[in-house]
Amino acid sequence: MALIVQKYGGTSVGDIERIKNVAQRVKTVYEQGHKIVVVLSAMAGVTNALINLAHQMSPQPDSRELDVLMATGEQQSIALFSMAAKDLGMHAHSLLGFQASIKTDNMFGRARITSVNTARIEDMLNRGVLVAVAGFQGLDTQGDVTTLGRGGSDTTAVALAAALKADLCEIYTDVEGVYTADPNMVAKARKLRQISYEEMLEMASLGAKVLDIRSVAMAAKFGVHVHVRSTFSDQEGTMVVPENIIDEKLTVRGVTYNKNDARIRISQVPDHPGTAYKLFAPVAEAGIVIDVIVQNISKEGYTDLTFTVPKTDFQRAMTILESQIIPMFKAGKLEGDTDIAKVSIVGIGMRNHSGVATKMFDVLARENINIQLISTSEIKISCVIDEKYTELAVRSLHEAFGLDKDNPPQAEA
Amino acid sequence: MALIVQKYGGTSVGDIERIKNVAQRVKTVYEQGHKIVVVLSAMAGVTNALINLAHQMSPQPDSRELDVLMATGEQQSIALFSMAAKDLGMHAHSLLGFQASIKTDNMFGRARITSVNTARIEDMLNRGVLVAVAGFQGLDTQGDVTTLGRGGSDTTAVALAAALKADLCEIYTDVEGVYTADPNMVAKARKLRQISYEEMLEMASLGAKVLDIRSVAMAAKFGVHVHVRSTFSDQEGTMVVPENIIDEKLTVRGVTYNKNDARIRISQVPDHPGTAYKLFAPVAEAGIVIDVIVQNISKEGYTDLTFTVPKTDFQRAMTILESQIIPMFKAGKLEGDTDIAKVSIVGIGMRNHSGVATKMFDVLARENINIQLISTSEIKISCVIDEKYTELAVRSLHEAFGLDKDNPPQAEA
Repeated sequence: MALIVQKYGGTSVGDIERIKNVAQRVKTVYEQGHKIVVVLSAMAGVTNALINLAHQMSPQPDSRELDVLMATGEQQSIALFSMAAKDLGMHAHSLLGFQASIKTDNMFGRARITSVNTARIEDMLNRGVLVAVAGFQGLDTQGDVTTLGRGGSDTTAVALAAALKADLCEIYTDVEGVYTADPNMVAKARKLRQISYEEMLEMASLGAKVLDIRSVAMAAKFGVHVHVRSTFSDQEGTMVVPENIIDEKLTVRGVTYNKNDARIRISQVPDHPGTAYKLFAPVAEAGIVIDVIVQNISKEGYTDLTFTVPKTDFQRAMTILESQIIPMFKAGKLEGDTDIAKVSIVGIGMRNHSGVATKMFDVLARENINIQLISTSEIKISCVIDEKYTELAVRSLHEAFGLDKDNPPQAEA
Repeated sequence: MALIVQKYGGTSVGDIERIKNVAQRVKTVYEQGHKIVVVLSAMAGVTNALINLAHQMSPQPDSRELDVLMATGEQQSIALFSMAAKDLGMHAHSLLGFQASIKTDNMFGRARITSVNTARIEDMLNRGVLVAVAGFQGLDTQGDVTTLGRGGSDTTAVALAAALKADLCEIYTDVEGVYTADPNMVAKARKLRQISYEEMLEMASLGAKVLDIRSVAMAAKFGVHVHVRSTFSDQEGTMVVPENIIDEKLTVRGVTYNKNDARIRISQVPDHPGTAYKLFAPVAEAGIVIDVIVQNISKEGYTDLTFTVPKTDFQRAMTILESQIIPMFKAGKLEGDTDIAKVSIVGIGMRNHSGVATKMFDVLARENINIQLISTSEIKISCVIDEKYTELAVRSLHEAFGLDKDNPPQAEA
């Protein structure tokens, strides 16, 4: 008999019939005698409808009250689900965030779970109750309702799984699992059977579509085994697990891309200690997140700085640099480009394999794709390229690293 | 500086603009430096939409989960209202039932408030916070969410006013107050300036439209002064207050009617001790509420019994009587009539005035309206008549007792 936490996302509980289907699915596991905690998101569309309502009320809705409003979405889901589950003969019982003792900090709209007291849930599970917990919500130390932000129900599920020492945390969503690449771009993309927490975190741009990134970090911290799978099929999905239990040996686990950034280059900046700080501080103070940064020596005593910012902040960043930074440093030239993409390969196997980066550069070179920026981490290599080559780059890399094959050629431990 | 509890009903907070108007109205009082607790209902239509959703999910939705679902309506109202209030510069803060420590029994869907711990609210009021409390909801001793049933927000407001020892409880609704008769039926119906708790309770059939009857009972118990008034005007409404502070002396306060009952007559029942019990027990056990009961001696050793039941239970009652009671007593005849109405006059002044009943019978007789049943309480006289004479009876009585005049002729203490 296992203890299983199951989370169903918004599309999985999108309407009355779908909620009934979820109840039916849960019943199969319930009748096998397992202890089950079901975490639910708001019905698809409800969260956006509530946000619209709030914005009709106020140009800038109060964050505390916005959370009180938003929390009703998941409350409705668990009530409706529990009705359906009871009609199917299960001893179901819903719990709101405060009833499940999910404590958070007081950052309304993006609260972090600080603790979960599982006494009530464990008591219920021991009495054979199917526990349905509202995702996305908690209570801060003041007794105020908080929400965890987009994708927060994943975090609720993982936090409960960790606190309950569950055998498994299943995240049911509308895709089949985590793929070697975006299946909409790469027809031969293959569903991964396993992926490590670190790889999943690095594949954020891909992974965020299936699993909230904060929940991955929490799963990693507590060693929770997460099974990402589809509500609409019985296929196995992808297991997100600790690195040491992965038996599918791949040097590269996936190819990801991101078209949300813009590139900025400042040339001929005097190369003194503190230059980078002085240059980036005003941009960071404006709340703009700087991603890849590359610094080159251009000519003696001068440097070229290139970096990326979110496209949505590009104009703001350019204005700040133009008005404050260029005059301060008497820097030569400010250039910007919004037509870029970042293409990455991710895999824990890279740590032990030299030549992966070389191979990536070679693949791009053979396709005549110029690399504008390179940034690497221990398990990821990213190249910034011209946006129009994104598909070509992703597909070429996917094929070159054999990700379309069940036993890729570079698969050696 | 006063402590005021204000309650706004569903139509008062029916849409975004109306909620903003309520916030504007509250602001006027808030800026006078008063301590204010605002109790809100769900936005008009929301409660019914949630019930529909539940019935789409289940033919008989689980009562515990139905309360979890229903409670979201008021939660949304207080969040939206607090956003509006903050935009107007008020220091507003919403509280859900559990946050306001509103404890109830565990009768889901029709819970009764058992206690209110006002510590948190009082602390907030002392810090100048405008407190917005979700009506209609509470928490039982198990920590489960409960709702108080239709009109429950009135009870929430009165309970809070009682617990906080508020100076006044204002119930804002979509009518101007309590009238001497239904203004839709009697054009000359006059808004009452004052009414006693007991009169209000007896005028349930009229009063229920403006004030939930359980809230009146609670106001009576704790001596809470309730001001029933309109959200959509600045007119004074009706004060519901203890009898001893009423200065508007009226023998009859109002004329009410009720077309929801049916009449049943059983003739020639053997007149033994215990007959009434044996006769009514099976009907009561079927959950049918028997209202007016009249017993006459028909001929020696036999009696005639006449009583009313809700029209919706009429067929069921007849079937039970036909199959079980008539054979048991070998009673002569079972008759039923659904075309009846109960017309009542209500007033605490009746206690000290003889001749009120006589006058009522005389008025009806002069209109050729036959009285089928009579029932009286200390402050009410009800006559069951043919339904088609309802309007005529109500209008005649209203005029005869001078209720259309500011100083009615019978107004003598």
